[in-house]
Amino acid sequence: MVKIEPQIQVDVSLPGYHYPIIISPHAVTDAGHFQSFIRAPQVLIVTNETVAPLYLPALQESFKDIQCDVVILPDGEEYKNVNSLHMIYDELIKNRHHRDTTLIALGGGVVGDITGFAASTYQRGVSYIQIPTTLLAQIDASVGGKTAINHELGKNMIGSFYQPKAVIIDPNTLLTLSEREFCSGLGEMIKYALLEGGLFLDQLKNSLDLGLTAKSAELSELIAECCRIKTLYVQADEKEEGCRALLNLGHTFGHAIETYSHYKEWLHGEAVAIGLFCAALLSEKLGLIDYKMVEDVESLLKQAKLPHKIPKDYDLESLLELMSLDKKIRANSWRFVVIRTFGDCYLDNDITKDIVYETLCAAI
Amino acid sequence: MVKIEPQIQVDVSLPGYHYPIIISPHAVTDAGHFQSFIRAPQVLIVTNETVAPLYLPALQESFKDIQCDVVILPDGEEYKNVNSLHMIYDELIKNRHHRDTTLIALGGGVVGDITGFAASTYQRGVSYIQIPTTLLAQIDASVGGKTAINHELGKNMIGSFYQPKAVIIDPNTLLTLSEREFCSGLGEMIKYALLEGGLFLDQLKNSLDLGLTAKSAELSELIAECCRIKTLYVQADEKEEGCRALLNLGHTFGHAIETYSHYKEWLHGEAVAIGLFCAALLSEKLGLIDYKMVEDVESLLKQAKLPHKIPKDYDLESLLELMSLDKKIRANSWRFVVIRTFGDCYLDNDITKDIVYETLCAAI
Repeated sequence: MVKIEPQIQVDVSLPGYHYPIIISPHAVTDAGHFQSFIRAPQVLIVTNETVAPLYLPALQESFKDIQCDVVILPDGEEYKNVNSLHMIYDELIKNRHHRDTTLIALGGGVVGDITGFAASTYQRGVSYIQIPTTLLAQIDASVGGKTAINHELGKNMIGSFYQPKAVIIDPNTLLTLSEREFCSGLGEMIKYALLEGGLFLDQLKNSLDLGLTAKSAELSELIAECCRIKTLYVQADEKEEGCRALLNLGHTFGHAIETYSHYKEWLHGEAVAIGLFCAALLSEKLGLIDYKMVEDVESLLKQAKLPHKIPKDYDLESLLELMSLDKKIRANSWRFVVIRTFGDCYLDNDITKDIVYETLCAAI
Repeated sequence: MVKIEPQIQVDVSLPGYHYPIIISPHAVTDAGHFQSFIRAPQVLIVTNETVAPLYLPALQESFKDIQCDVVILPDGEEYKNVNSLHMIYDELIKNRHHRDTTLIALGGGVVGDITGFAASTYQRGVSYIQIPTTLLAQIDASVGGKTAINHELGKNMIGSFYQPKAVIIDPNTLLTLSEREFCSGLGEMIKYALLEGGLFLDQLKNSLDLGLTAKSAELSELIAECCRIKTLYVQADEKEEGCRALLNLGHTFGHAIETYSHYKEWLHGEAVAIGLFCAALLSEKLGLIDYKMVEDVESLLKQAKLPHKIPKDYDLESLLELMSLDKKIRANSWRFVVIRTFGDCYLDNDITKDIVYETLCAAI
C-alpha cells in the first residue's frame, strides 16, 4: 500500500517566466499533470535504459493520443556527451518535431541535463518538462534551468541556462532506486543543510539518526524544502553571477574528483560528499571553523553512507590541475565556497593554490 | 585614398539588454572600438581561411597586450557544422578560457552564426562581438542574436537566441569581397526593400540603376538602414514568436534550395533571391499581387546580378519534402510570408501544398 500524501507545489518566479515544481506521489502515472504544459500534439520522451522499463510505459500512456517519440540513452555520467545529444537531435529531426514540440526528461540528472540542453538548442529553443526519478535530480539537477553536457576535458563545459515548463517530482520513483543512488542524493541534501543551517540542518540530522530511506514519511517535505532553498538562490541570481555560486559548495573539489576518475568511479553526490569534506577542511585551514565542525560534516556524511576521503592513490597535482580548469576559477584568482558557520557560507576569491594543496593532502 | 565617413550607430534595446551596432570605416583596425566591450584579458577570435590573411593581423594588433587565441575555420556554408563548433570549444578549453572571456566573430554569416552559438553554450554562455565582413552578414546575420549550426537534414536546426555585446561593421571590408559575394548580400537588401517599401525601396532601386558597388558613397547609409529595419523587428519580437517571422520572406523556399544543393551550389543571398521570386509568384497565385509586381521583383534581382529561377534539373517533389521540415512549417499548416504589396507583407498560415507546388513549377 502506498500512503496518501498531499501534493506540494513550489513556484519558481523569474523575470517574465514562471513555472511550478510539483511534488506529488503517482505523478508519473497521472496524465493530468502534463496536459496543461504541452503546446502541440507532439512530445519526445528522453530516458535511459535503467528507467525505461520502470516508468516509460506508464508515462507513454499519458500521450497515447498524440505523437510520442522516445530516445533511450545508455545509463551513466559517461554518456552525458555530444553523442547522446545528437541521438536526441536526430530523433527530433527524423520525426519532424516542430518549434512547438515538448521534450520530456524522464530520469536522473544526466537525462535532465542533456534533455534540457537539447531543448534549449533544437530550432533555437523548444519547451521541456523535467520528471526527475533520482533523489539527486529531484532536489538539485532538475531545479533552476542549468543544462549541460560534458567535454572530455571538463564537466558541464557546454550548456545553457534554460528553464523548463514544469518540474514534476514523483517521490514514489525513489522506491526503485538503489541504496547507493539514494545516498548519492543525500550528498546534495547535506549540502543544502550546511548552506541553510538552523532548523533544516537539525531536521536532516534527526532524519539521518532515525535512518532516512526512500520510504520515510518525511521525505516529500525534505525534497520540497531543498527545492525551496534552491529556488531562492535561482530567483536571486538565475545566471550565477552572484549568490547562486554558493550552491557550488563542495563542487569545485567534487568536479575535479569526477573528472579525474572519468565520471566512472563516483556518483555525482558521492564526489560532492568528498567535496563537502574538503570544503570544511579548507574552511578550517583558513581559520573560519574549528576541527569539531569538520568532524560534524564527516559524521553527517557517514550517517548518509557517503564517502568523505579522497582515495589514497589519487595524484593530487593532477587534481589541482583539473581544478584550475573549473568554470568557477577566474583568471589567476582561485574561488571556493567556504563555511563561516553552518548557515553562513560565502565565496572567497583569494584562495591560494598552496592552501588548496594542503587541503587535498589532509583529505586523503 | 579612402573617403572619410562619419560613424553611424544603431542601438538595439531588448528587455534588460542593450547593445550598439557601430558602422564605421576602419573599425577593424581601431582598437578603441573593442576595449569597452571586453571584460577580461582573454579573447578568442574566430575567422576563416579567406578572411584571416586580410584582416586578422590588424585585429590581433588590438589585443596584443592580452591573451588572444585564434580559430581559423575552412570557408563555406558546408562547414557551418558540429565539427567547426567543436574546433572552437576545444580551443577555448585547451587555452583555459573562463566565463568572462569574449569571443570575436571576424567573417561572414557562417563565422558569426557558429561563433555566436559557441558563445551561447560555452560554460553556459560567454560574451561575443560580431565583426561581419560580408555585406550579407553586415545587414542580416550579425544583427539580432540568432545563432546556429546546420544539421545534415536542415539548415540552422541547432541554435539559440543570444545577443552579442556589440556589432562592429567596417564597410571598407567589403572592398575585398568578390562581386558574387557582394551581390549575394544585395539579395537580403532587396528583401528588406520589399518588406519596407516606400522610400527605402525607391532609394535601393535608384542605387541599383546607378550600379551599386562596394565603393558606392551611399553604401554605409544603406547598410545602416537595413540594420535599423531589422532592429525594429528584433525589438518587437526577439524570439520570433510573431512579426520577426516576416524577415523570413523568401527564406522557406531559399533554405530548401540550399539544403537540396547541400549548401554548395548557392550563396545564401542567391538562394534567398530565388526564394524572393518564388514568394512573389506565390503571392500572385494567391491573387494578392498582379504579375507586373512579380516582374518588378525579377527586375530588381537581375539588376543586382542575382539568380531568380529554380534550376531546371531540380526535383520539385524533393524541394517540397525539404520545405515540410522547415522550422516555420507547423504541424499540418504550411506557413509562408507573402506580399500584399511592397511594404506590406504578412504571414499566411493556410498555404496548401498544391499551390506551393504550382509556385515551384512556375519558378523553373
